[in-house]
Amino acid sequence: MRASILTIGDEVVGGEIVDTNKAEIASGLRLRGVMPFEVRTILDDAGAIVAALRELSDVSELLIVTGGLGPTTDDLTAACAARFLAVPLVRDAPTVERMRARFAAIGREMPDNNLKQADLPEGATIVPNPVGTAPGFVLEARHATHTTTLFFFPGVPSELRALMDAALWPWLDARGLGPARLARLAVFGLTESETGARIERALDAVGRPPLRVQYRVAMPAIYLTLHAEHTGAASFDAALDAVAGALGSHVYAGAHRPLAEVVGELLRARGLTLAVAESCTGGLVSALLTDTPGASAFLVESAVTYANAAKTRVLGVAETTLAQHGAVSEPCAREMAEGIRARAGTDLAIAVTGIAGPDGGTPDKPVGTVWIAVASGDGTATRRLASRGDRDRIRRTAAAAALDQLRRVLCARAA
Amino acid sequence: MRASILTIGDEVVGGEIVDTNKAEIASGLRLRGVMPFEVRTILDDAGAIVAALRELSDVSELLIVTGGLGPTTDDLTAACAARFLAVPLVRDAPTVERMRARFAAIGREMPDNNLKQADLPEGATIVPNPVGTAPGFVLEARHATHTTTLFFFPGVPSELRALMDAALWPWLDARGLGPARLARLAVFGLTESETGARIERALDAVGRPPLRVQYRVAMPAIYLTLHAEHTGAASFDAALDAVAGALGSHVYAGAHRPLAEVVGELLRARGLTLAVAESCTGGLVSALLTDTPGASAFLVESAVTYANAAKTRVLGVAETTLAQHGAVSEPCAREMAEGIRARAGTDLAIAVTGIAGPDGGTPDKPVGTVWIAVASGDGTATRRLASRGDRDRIRRTAAAAALDQLRRVLCARAA
Repeated sequence: MRASILTIGDEVVGGEIVDTNKAEIASGLRLRGVMPFEVRTILDDAGAIVAALRELSDVSELLIVTGGLGPTTDDLTAACAARFLAVPLVRDAPTVERMRARFAAIGREMPDNNLKQADLPEGATIVPNPVGTAPGFVLEARHATHTTTLFFFPGVPSELRALMDAALWPWLDARGLGPARLARLAVFGLTESETGARIERALDAVGRPPLRVQYRVAMPAIYLTLHAEHTGAASFDAALDAVAGALGSHVYAGAHRPLAEVVGELLRARGLTLAVAESCTGGLVSALLTDTPGASAFLVESAVTYANAAKTRVLGVAETTLAQHGAVSEPCAREMAEGIRARAGTDLAIAVTGIAGPDGGTPDKPVGTVWIAVASGDGTATRRLASRGDRDRIRRTAAAAALDQLRRVLCARAA
Repeated sequence: MRASILTIGDEVVGGEIVDTNKAEIASGLRLRGVMPFEVRTILDDAGAIVAALRELSDVSELLIVTGGLGPTTDDLTAACAARFLAVPLVRDAPTVERMRARFAAIGREMPDNNLKQADLPEGATIVPNPVGTAPGFVLEARHATHTTTLFFFPGVPSELRALMDAALWPWLDARGLGPARLARLAVFGLTESETGARIERALDAVGRPPLRVQYRVAMPAIYLTLHAEHTGAASFDAALDAVAGALGSHVYAGAHRPLAEVVGELLRARGLTLAVAESCTGGLVSALLTDTPGASAFLVESAVTYANAAKTRVLGVAETTLAQHGAVSEPCAREMAEGIRARAGTDLAIAVTGIAGPDGGTPDKPVGTVWIAVASGDGTATRRLASRGDRDRIRRTAAAAALDQLRRVLCARAA
C-alpha cells in the first residue's frame, strides 16, 4: 500500500517545535506492514494545502494529514479538504453537541469560533475526539488508477494518538497486510562503511534476498534495521543469520539499545559488582551506566581522577609509573583499574585514561590515544584505542569502548 | 527568499528516529530572515529523490538537502543530484585525500566503498567535512524565473551542524537578509512558560517593541534569541534590558553556552580548585565539567558514591547520618561535600544526592527530591530541589542545579 504523511502548520515548518508525530505515525504504519514513501510538512496556506492534497493523493492509496484543525483563522485544513474534493462544508450537529458538552463539563460557554471545528467536508466519516474539541474525519478520493483514503487528524499529540487508535489502526488492521518481517541489531566497534561492506558481502553470499537495510548512527554505536515486505520467514532468517555472522561480536544487542544498558543487565544477571576509574572520560562511563535505573545493584563506586596526584592518592597509581610511562599508558590504566577494584572490593573494575584533546597530544601519543583496562579476579585485560574526531566524540568513543571491553570480558566468562 | 528543506532517508520517513535536524535548519533560516515554506522527507529511492529535487527547486531559490551521503548502497543523494542536473559524477581528489588522512590517523585502511563519498556532481562547490568523511556540496540550478542554490549536507547532526556553520550560514549572512538586531541569553532555573510570562510582562512594560523572541529548550537550560528587523538600537537595547532584568540571576550567560562551561570559566579565572561528590547524578556533573577542555586546571577529584557504604568509606559520611536522615537528606549532602573537599584538599566542593526514579520515592521524599551542597572555606550552602519528569530529566536538572548553585556561590564571593 502506497502511503504518505502530510503535516500542516507554520510552527512545524518553522522549527519552533520538533515534530514527534511523524515518527509515531510512521512507526505505527510500519508495524502494520506499510512503509510510507514521503512525509511532507507545509505552511498554513490554503493554496499550498490544496496542492499538497492533490499531489500526494495522486500517488498514495493512504494519506494521513495532521494539523490545521484548530478553531483559529489560521486553521484551514477542513476547508481545503472540501475544496480539494469539490464538496461543500457542512456543519455536523453531533460534533457541535459533543463540543458543547465538553465545555459544559468544565463550566464554560463554548466560544463561537469553536463552531468552525464542526464544519466538515460533505460525505466525511467523522471520528469523534475523546480528548479534545476537533474531530478527525476520513474522506475518499477516486482516481483513474486507485482510490485514496485520507485521514485527517488534529496535530496535538495526545489527540492524534487517541484518534489513530480509534480509526486508523483498526482500518489498517482490517486490511490484514500483516507485519512485515523486521529485525533490529545494535553494533559497536565498526565504522558505518565497514558495517555496510560486511553486510553487502553477507547478502551477496545468500543470494541477495529483497531485504532493506537501514543504518542509524547512534554515536558511537550503529543501529541497524533489516526489513522485507515479501520475503518468506526462512529466507529472511537466513539473511539475518548471514548479516549477524558477518558482524560477529560487534553485535551487542538484538534491539536498538544503548551499550551501557546491555552491560548493566549482564552485570545484574550475574550478580557481579563493578567499580570505575575515569580520567579523560571525566565521569561519562559512570553517567552512562547510571542512565538506566538499577545501577545501584552493581555500581559500588566510581572515581574521576583527572589530576595525576589524585590518581596516586585515590587509586594508588605508583608515582614511578606516572614518571616513566605517563598517565596515558598501559601500566597506568592497569594500576587505575586494579587500584579502584581493591579499594572498592568489587568483582570487576574498569579504567579509562586518554587524551581527549584538543591539546595535550604528542607525536608518540596523539590526541585520541586512550588506554582501557578491565580488572577482575582472573587478571587485567588492557586495550589501546586510537580515536578520531573532536573532544566530545573521543570521549564518547572511549567511554563506549570501555563498556564494550567489559561486555567482552563478561561474555568470555560465560563461555 | 523562497526556501525549502528536503530530508532523505528511510530511517527518517519510517519514524525510526525523531528528526531534530529540520527544526535546527529552520530555526537557523528564520534567524537570518528566511521562513521556509515546505519541509519534505522521502525514502532512499532514486526516482523519488530526483523528482523531489526537481519539484522543490522549481519553486525554491534555496533548497537544503540532508541525508543519503553515506558510504553504503542506500545512500543515493550525490548520484541523484548529478542526474537531476544532467552532469556526471566526478571523483574529487582532495576529498579522497582528506578521507584517507582521516582513516590513516586512526591507523586503518579506508574501505573501498568510502570512495563513493568522493564521487560528486561535476561543478559542485565542495564543503570539506571537519568531523566526518562525507563532504557537503553546493550546486546551482538555473530556471527561467530564478536560480536555485542547493546545499547538500550529511544527516548526522554533528556533521550537519559543522557544515552549515562552514557554508550555509555565511552564504545567508552575506545576503544580508538577517535581522538588524540580535541578542542571545542563556537561562536556568525557570520553566519555559514562566520565562515566557516574564518576558511578555517585560515587553508590555516597554511598549512592546517589534521584537521576536525564540525559545530553544537546551534541557535543562533555555536558550533565548531576541531579534528585530526594523527596531532602532536604543529601543532594542531598552527591550533587552527589560527582558534581562525580568529574568534576573536566572540569566547565566549572554550567549548560548552550557552552564558547565560558564562555571568552569569562573573557576579558572579565579584560580580555584573543585572536588565533586555525586550520587543520583552518577558522574554527570563531572562529565559536564570535563566536556570543555581545561577542566584539569580546577577539577582535582570526583567521586561517584552510588552505594551508601561508599558514601561512608570514601567520603566519611557518618553511618548515623544515613540511619537517621537517609542518603537523600541535607546532612548527607553536607557531609558528602565537606568530606570530598577535605579529602581532595580543594577550595570548593559540590555534592548531589537524590532520587532519580522511577523507583525509590516515598510520600515524604518523592521521586525528584534532590539535595545539593556547596562547601567552601566560608561554610557549606545547601539547597533542596523538587524536580519533575523522567529519570533522565531529573538527573540532568539535578546536575545543572548543582552547577548553578556553585555559580551563585562564585558570583557572591566576587561581590
